[in-house]
Amino acid sequence: MTESHPRPARSGAAGRHPFETDLDRTPANHVPLTPVSLLARAAAAAGGRIAVIDGARRLTYAELYARCRRLASGLAGHGIGRLDTVAILAPNVPEMIEAHFAVPMLGAVLNPLNTRLDPATIAFSLAHGGARVLLVEADCAPLAAQALSACPEPILVVAIGETGIPGAIPYEALLAAGDPDHAWTGPADEWQSLCLLYTSGTTGDPKGAVYSHRGAYLQALGNAVTFGLTADSVYLWTLPMFHCSGWSYPWASVAACATQICLRKVEPAAIFRLIAEHGVTHLCGAPIVLSMIAHAPAADRRAFPQRVRCAVGGAAPSSTIIRTMEELGFEVLHLYGATESYGPATVCLAQPDWADLSEDDRYARMARQGVPLATLEDVTVIDPATDRPVQRDGTAVGEICLRGNTIMKGYLGNPDATAQALAGGWYRTGDLAVWHPDGSVEIKDRAKDIIISGGENISSLEVEEVLMRHPAVMLAAVVARPDPTWGESPCAFLEVKPGTEAPSAQDVIVFCRGRMARFKVPKTVVFGPLPKTLTGKIQKFVLRDRARDF
Amino acid sequence: MTESHPRPARSGAAGRHPFETDLDRTPANHVPLTPVSLLARAAAAAGGRIAVIDGARRLTYAELYARCRRLASGLAGHGIGRLDTVAILAPNVPEMIEAHFAVPMLGAVLNPLNTRLDPATIAFSLAHGGARVLLVEADCAPLAAQALSACPEPILVVAIGETGIPGAIPYEALLAAGDPDHAWTGPADEWQSLCLLYTSGTTGDPKGAVYSHRGAYLQALGNAVTFGLTADSVYLWTLPMFHCSGWSYPWASVAACATQICLRKVEPAAIFRLIAEHGVTHLCGAPIVLSMIAHAPAADRRAFPQRVRCAVGGAAPSSTIIRTMEELGFEVLHLYGATESYGPATVCLAQPDWADLSEDDRYARMARQGVPLATLEDVTVIDPATDRPVQRDGTAVGEICLRGNTIMKGYLGNPDATAQALAGGWYRTGDLAVWHPDGSVEIKDRAKDIIISGGENISSLEVEEVLMRHPAVMLAAVVARPDPTWGESPCAFLEVKPGTEAPSAQDVIVFCRGRMARFKVPKTVVFGPLPKTLTGKIQKFVLRDRARDF
Repeated sequence: MTESHPRPARSGAAGRHPFETDLDRTPANHVPLTPVSLLARAAAAAGGRIAVIDGARRLTYAELYARCRRLASGLAGHGIGRLDTVAILAPNVPEMIEAHFAVPMLGAVLNPLNTRLDPATIAFSLAHGGARVLLVEADCAPLAAQALSACPEPILVVAIGETGIPGAIPYEALLAAGDPDHAWTGPADEWQSLCLLYTSGTTGDPKGAVYSHRGAYLQALGNAVTFGLTADSVYLWTLPMFHCSGWSYPWASVAACATQICLRKVEPAAIFRLIAEHGVTHLCGAPIVLSMIAHAPAADRRAFPQRVRCAVGGAAPSSTIIRTMEELGFEVLHLYGATESYGPATVCLAQPDWADLSEDDRYARMARQGVPLATLEDVTVIDPATDRPVQRDGTAVGEICLRGNTIMKGYLGNPDATAQALAGGWYRTGDLAVWHPDGSVEIKDRAKDIIISGGENISSLEVEEVLMRHPAVMLAAVVARPDPTWGESPCAFLEVKPGTEAPSAQDVIVFCRGRMARFKVPKTVVFGPLPKTLTGKIQKFVLRDRARDF
Repeated sequence: MTESHPRPARSGAAGRHPFETDLDRTPANHVPLTPVSLLARAAAAAGGRIAVIDGARRLTYAELYARCRRLASGLAGHGIGRLDTVAILAPNVPEMIEAHFAVPMLGAVLNPLNTRLDPATIAFSLAHGGARVLLVEADCAPLAAQALSACPEPILVVAIGETGIPGAIPYEALLAAGDPDHAWTGPADEWQSLCLLYTSGTTGDPKGAVYSHRGAYLQALGNAVTFGLTADSVYLWTLPMFHCSGWSYPWASVAACATQICLRKVEPAAIFRLIAEHGVTHLCGAPIVLSMIAHAPAADRRAFPQRVRCAVGGAAPSSTIIRTMEELGFEVLHLYGATESYGPATVCLAQPDWADLSEDDRYARMARQGVPLATLEDVTVIDPATDRPVQRDGTAVGEICLRGNTIMKGYLGNPDATAQALAGGWYRTGDLAVWHPDGSVEIKDRAKDIIISGGENISSLEVEEVLMRHPAVMLAAVVARPDPTWGESPCAFLEVKPGTEAPSAQDVIVFCRGRMARFKVPKTVVFGPLPKTLTGKIQKFVLRDRARDF
């Protein structure tokens, strides 16, 4: 006891504070966070519940956990262990979910690859990520075979279904040889690397964002709370799992003990059928998925009694799409994030003043990127000129920056890109936005998507939003076209609705003139299908090239 | 590059693995977990939403956050800082919620005290915990004044309302002087102590369970996922917040951006009125709360359209209560936990085979303690004889043991009790249970003879000690007697001293009232020889049977 701290609680041993004495971490009260725990707990808590549905297949949580342990055991038998890279090239099949738990069980790193990429890019990722194993689903076999032939080092191939790849080990044989009671231990350090996700860079080689066990665990819980996943939820996989590890939903669904329904190919008839048959309550997707659902032919539609929460990310949903989705029984929730943020980082949470808004105004609010997820520490909008937050006035434009435990560790083997992305204690998204008084952010454009015409900044998104209101337009993309007079001018690429006749370019221009400042009106209007990635993102760089060549 | 690791991803600098190179924690991607972050985020994400309702008072999340920062700032102005203890003696008022965020903002330790205890026990806790400040709500002023008079050291008193305690600083004056933009920093280490909760021990003095910032953050998310709290939820405070920090629900509600409704006194009419007026969706409580609701007079009842999820803990709900609650529009969820586990550790999750059960069998299943919460690592039932898990056969009895990040750091200043409670990598609950094949645990007996009356733990040993002080009593044994109102009530069996005339039961009860909290006083007193083993140990199981049969 000292004179200044006379009470019992202030007299720790060796001068240490009582609250820091004999209150240490022990195996009873401290376990490094890992998403694998969520599966072990789900198997213990809900072993008899259905974890995964894939066509006629059903896996209970007990079965899923046993299969994951078998897979981990089988891979361990081939020498795979801590920090070894296991790549996977597969559509949304149960094995994709299994890999998201089995590989981390070994302390190995899962590298989900985009199945729509070209063989050379896949080969680059395999080599750069140091893949020792590649899990290949039959549908991806030709792509995998070509990529593997370009790889300098031999990679063990595990075949999900019939791949015809010489030397491949059948996935089910690997599991059959594996131990369903495989004793896994979580990472000693929850910061340990867990997943490797390559982003399609706009310039140069893809960058490999690295996730940690800690980040994935927290993002899983944050997703579950934000999206309202519970043990009664049924989650439909309309989002590719290779995209940011399915926005971390393989882990989030398991955290909630929900049921996941696999879907290989995103088609409206299949989506409606699964919603009606299995009581789907949640799905995620790019705007193209919503567009597909909203514009589904009547023959593909099925009625369903439940409310389906539909989270959309990648670009803001248009008012037309939101309205149609709501009429069909969906509740649209706009999320925003990046590969670098384990998927969703912000959510467009309904605000109290929405109740007083007109329908159009409410839809406009719903298209904002919104506010931080429960597990994200902070969002800000930083003025690039001053490196200070912009005013929350809905007009000053700055870069959206994110901070928290659900931000990537960095880019693998790329310290310069990492330092740039995480400069000054924030992840710099590269997205330009305004900050509204209610705290929500609203993207005005990707930094590279701003069109500068006659010295005026034009937000391509703003022009697109107007174009989408044209009754004949299903999808709109606006890019800069070099202009001898103005430097750049807006060039619009439009997809018309099925069964609708394309309007004339002049008709579209007149439509725009009544609805935006003169300098923002597209000078060029082109009709035809838009180039898209699998995740439904419009490939603006392709359109930019086209516009340049006009 | 080494020969065995020829790929780019395997050639880290200085021989380190690429997945451990240039991928360090930075302020952008790593923030120590603290429940304070949840409030900062809620204020950023839902500043305009109602966070707290108390009678006619409304606090938005922006206002709640500002008031918490003012309180932190005000306390800092009185020299309160890292690891200083701030005690609070209050019913369920908004200030109780504020303290759960403001005190941790300072890195100080919040010590919520049980308002039903006697002054001597309160004084013990204040001294043992080293309280530097005591926040006192007007209703608790007499208790606080008596306790303070027994404290050897001066403690700064902050008065919530009119307490009449000399020298007390008015709470609102402290806030008025505080800075609503007070710049708080989270703990440098998320293991830092956050809360101190005294449990009524079975022997000797109360033990102070210590929580960490990490544990509270994770328990908040686990609660939200398990209970299905979302931004649309309305949580009614029918559980005392001084119990395990309200089972961590002050933090869980904020994690979900839900609305919390304060309630000072648990009365059926008020509960029904608030449910109907505010669209309450969730509430928690001891069985006495459910009993009160289920048996409410018709005049106190109000109809409401929503389904209200009602989590019950402390003792298993009876089938009669569950049936009545379901008829009234409630959905009952049985939780189990302890002060040492931040409140709920297990949840009685519905299992698929319940669908085939009769109503009575289903109610029996709902009374089980259940399976681990999302954020608890593991539950087991350990045979004390072998220290190995018992068979999952529903018959073998062992001790329920818990493990994970939501287990306390230990007991303050009590390394022996800590070592015993956390022995062998598990928190030993002292509760005896069977383990069912579906993974759920079911309590058969309480190893420590705890009586749970109206949600309050009563140590039979503590009551026995007082009884033994009665001049006529030679031996005393206290066991639980089933009580229709309180769940259980203490029942005392007494052997009088030879040659002494037995006092009246009423005489004994009056004797106890002067020496213990009201709820601990035996409701039944029986005289006669006590059944003993050959070695002279009182056979409590015999007495329990007798008490049941009265």
